Parts: sequence; C-alpha cells; structure tokens
Amino acid sequence: MKFTEKLDAAIKKNNSLLCIGLDIDLKRIPASLLNKGDPIFDFNKAIIDATKDLVCAYKPNIAFYEMYGIYGMQALIKTIEYASDHVPVILDAKRGDVGHTASAYAKSIFEIYKADATTVNPYMGYDSVEPFLEYKDKGIFILCLTSNVGHKDFQVVGKEEPLYKLVAKHVKEWDVSLNCGLVVGATNPDELKDIRKIAGDMPILIPGVGAQGGDLASSVRYGVNKKGERAIINSSRGIIFASPGEDFAGAARQAARKLKEDINTYRFVG
Amino acid sequence: MKFTEKLDAAIKKNNSLLCIGLDIDLKRIPASLLNKGDPIFDFNKAIIDATKDLVCAYKPNIAFYEMYGIYGMQALIKTIEYASDHVPVILDAKRGDVGHTASAYAKSIFEIYKADATTVNPYMGYDSVEPFLEYKDKGIFILCLTSNVGHKDFQVVGKEEPLYKLVAKHVKEWDVSLNCGLVVGATNPDELKDIRKIAGDMPILIPGVGAQGGDLASSVRYGVNKKGERAIINSSRGIIFASPGEDFAGAARQAARKLKEDINTYRFVG
Repeated sequence: MKFTEKLDAAIKKNNSLLCIGLDIDLKRIPASLLNKGDPIFDFNKAIIDATKDLVCAYKPNIAFYEMYGIYGMQALIKTIEYASDHVPVILDAKRGDVGHTASAYAKSIFEIYKADATTVNPYMGYDSVEPFLEYKDKGIFILCLTSNVGHKDFQVVGKEEPLYKLVAKHVKEWDVSLNCGLVVGATNPDELKDIRKIAGDMPILIPGVGAQGGDLASSVRYGVNKKGERAIINSSRGIIFASPGEDFAGAARQAARKLKEDINTYRFVG
Repeated sequence: MKFTEKLDAAIKKNNSLLCIGLDIDLKRIPASLLNKGDPIFDFNKAIIDATKDLVCAYKPNIAFYEMYGIYGMQALIKTIEYASDHVPVILDAKRGDVGHTASAYAKSIFEIYKADATTVNPYMGYDSVEPFLEYKDKGIFILCLTSNVGHKDFQVVGKEEPLYKLVAKHVKEWDVSLNCGLVVGATNPDELKDIRKIAGDMPILIPGVGAQGGDLASSVRYGVNKKGERAIINSSRGIIFASPGEDFAGAARQAARKLKEDINTYRFVG
C-alpha cells in the first residue's frame, strides 16, 4: 500500500490530523520504567497504546535514539514495528548525501528501521533525494521552510523567489510517483498558505505547534488540502511528557485528544 | 587537544593531505573476511594498518554503516576508536535539525561514536549548527558547495551572491572557537579558489577526486591555505577497493601512496 493511502486511511479512521512525535528523553520518563529491561520501548508502547485511536501518524526523531547508542537504535526498531501496525510511522531523519550514499541511507531507513516515510534535506539537490524517491510506496518529506529561527539564514534567500519556494516547486516536479511531501514549520502560516498552493495535494508535515510556539489555527487552515486533509500536525513533548508521573500515558491521551479536537475545529474553516 | 591541532600534527607527521573515506561495502570485500566474526572492522583495521602513515585523517560515512543495522553501527564505533589513535577521524554524517534535536545528534556523534570531527548540513541555519559548535575541541565541517550534479539545484541560487558563498561567509562568522571547516567538492575548482579566500585558515574538506571525477591539481592548489595545509583531500572507493582480492590492503597502500604523492606535487605550486 502506498504511504498516502495508509495516511489517508488513518486520517479517516481516527478523524485526526494529529501526529505524535516520539522524541524519547530518559530524563523525563517515570523512574519506575527505568528499573526495567527496556525503558524506551516500554514508554513508547504505553504512549502508543494510549493514543493510537487519536492520531494519523507517529514521528520518532532518530536523533533522540542515536543519542542512546546501540540500545537506542534497537528500541527505535521495536517502536516502529509496534506503531506501524496501527498508523504510518514517519522516521524524522533529515538525511541528505550524494547518490550512492543516499541509497545507503534510504536502505537503512526503509529496510532496517522499516519506516513508512522519512524526512530528507534538499541542500544537495535532486540526485541526493532520488534514491529515496525510488521507494515508491514510502513517503518522502523534503524540508522546505522549517520552524526554527535559523530558517531565516538560508531558506529565504533568492533572486526572484525565496529558496523555500524554489524547493517546493522542484519537489512538485519530482513527485512523479506521488510519494513526496513537504516539511513546513507551524511558525510560518502565511508562507504555508503559498506553499499549499504550489503543493497541490501533497502531504505537508507541520511541526512546531507545541513547544516551538507555532500558530495552530492558521497552520491547520492553510495546511490542509481542499478536502481538509493531507496536513500532518506534529506535537512531541507537549503530549508525551504531559505528565512526569506514573499517569504519563493517561495524561498523554488527554493532551492528544484535546489537540486533535482543536485541530478539527479549524480543519473545515477554509 | 583541539581538532585543528590534531589535524595539523597528522599533516606534518605524515607529510600528507590525504584522507581515506572508509565507506564500507560488504559486496566488495574479500570473501575470506566474510566468514569471520567481524568483517567490517577486520576490513577497516587492515586498511588503517596499511595506510596510517600516509594520511592526515580517515572519514567513514555513517550511511554505509547504518545500512548494516545494529552490527554496522557497532563496527563503526570500533573502527573510529581504532583509527583515532593514529590520526583524526571525521564522521561524515551531514546532520542538521532544530536546536534540541541537533544537541542529540552532536551527543551521538561526539560521545557515542567519539568522532574527532563531523559534517553538518547548513539548510536549517545557525541554531541547527550551534549545538555542534559547543564542542570546542571537535571539528565541524559545514556543507558549502558539494561535488554532485545536484549542487546546481539550490546551492548556487541567490540575489547578490550564490547561496554557497553566503554559507561560507556565515560559517566564517560562526568560527569564534576556531572549530569550523567547510565541505567543498573537488568538481568545483574555480569556486574553491573564492571559498578559500573567504575561509582564511579554516580547514576545507574536499571530496570527489576519485570516482566522482574532480580535478586533483586545481583542488589541491586552490584548496590549501598559505602554508600549503588545511585542505583535506578525500578519496574513498578508489583506495579501499583498489583490489577486490586478498591483496586489498597492499593495493590500498599503493593507491594511497600514489595519491598522497600526487597531492604533494601540487601543494606548494601556489
């Protein structure tokens, strides 16, 4: 099944555009989990069990697993296997390298970690993205305009148009297998509106609504396609660390349900 | 010891600007190694033992290890530990993400893999690079102008100057701890000349002289600083896979010695 089909099915089934970022931090999980065999997976499993009917996707960022070395990467593989039984998993890895090296990265992400989709950095151009695009049933989200302050350093430079628009236009051309998407931070609602026009029906992954302070209402209104779909609104720490105590999974469910419902309020405003 | 000191010492001791890219490929190593316990490390160790007096650095690209899953990453950790006893190791990873995520990547690369230096993608701007810069004794090579065809898609756009020059100028400003470097492909010798002027004494990592067909003479002449140093000329497959047979280490030594000497021919031409 193609990634977009799996995504659309999850959006419909759970009536949700919410994506939960599984950005593990062993300093922020309950002490009781740390004393057992597999704290990262146990934490993630509890979050997934508590929220899997409220989301359209999960998005672990691989950095937070690499930080814990071999153990972290083993726990990530288990987490993706478990989560992808329910909804698609976007492995946020932002890779980018010359062709034969990009092939090795794509192999790692889709065949070792078995993610349904990933994020890719466009700086090195088409031949650095192409090996990912060859996985036609996977989703490839290319960084366009990011939510951090540093996006102003390079993403807005340009002659006739800013770099991020040029990226969006190129990605639209690269999307011959209908497996591309874009990453646009929630901190840029006006630009998101323009990018959605360029993107057509491409999925747009929108991080930055929680800790990074992005505008939820505008992100949803301008992010969705004409059917009120294909925008993936990500929140990480605001949900998974909603409570530092033993009730973390229940608190995550409450926070996820509230955000899902807030998102749906803005979905069909147009 | 700071990365640049370790690099300068290796350049001086071995009279070499050659960096060998340890880009493992289990399909290209002798069958006899595959039947033993640790083929990736055994291959790398043999290459390192045969070439450690001929190089100023080693550069494994992490993609080729991630491709082999948990085993690949274990072998990479062992390889870096072994190689860095001799010369600095640049872990080519091209990471780039928002601040707190970039911190996790930096921790992985410098504290789990224990590399002496790494490569970073500039697309997301200063706050995505800053967590790496905080490791003042490590080397941070920021992608500037890459060797692949796709560099023309985005790296040359701009109003008054191309993006890659803007990147070089910003990196020069970010270099307050003297731990920055730039990545400039050997396929762009004229641009390299301009970039060296901007970079001053910053190390420049120059891949692409082998399989990618870059111009060696110009890359060395325009890449070095005024002392004929601080250019790191990388070759990967042309050296480590110089022979597919049991004589691979000896063949790698011969190829490395020849390239090292060719590089030195052009170092002081000016």
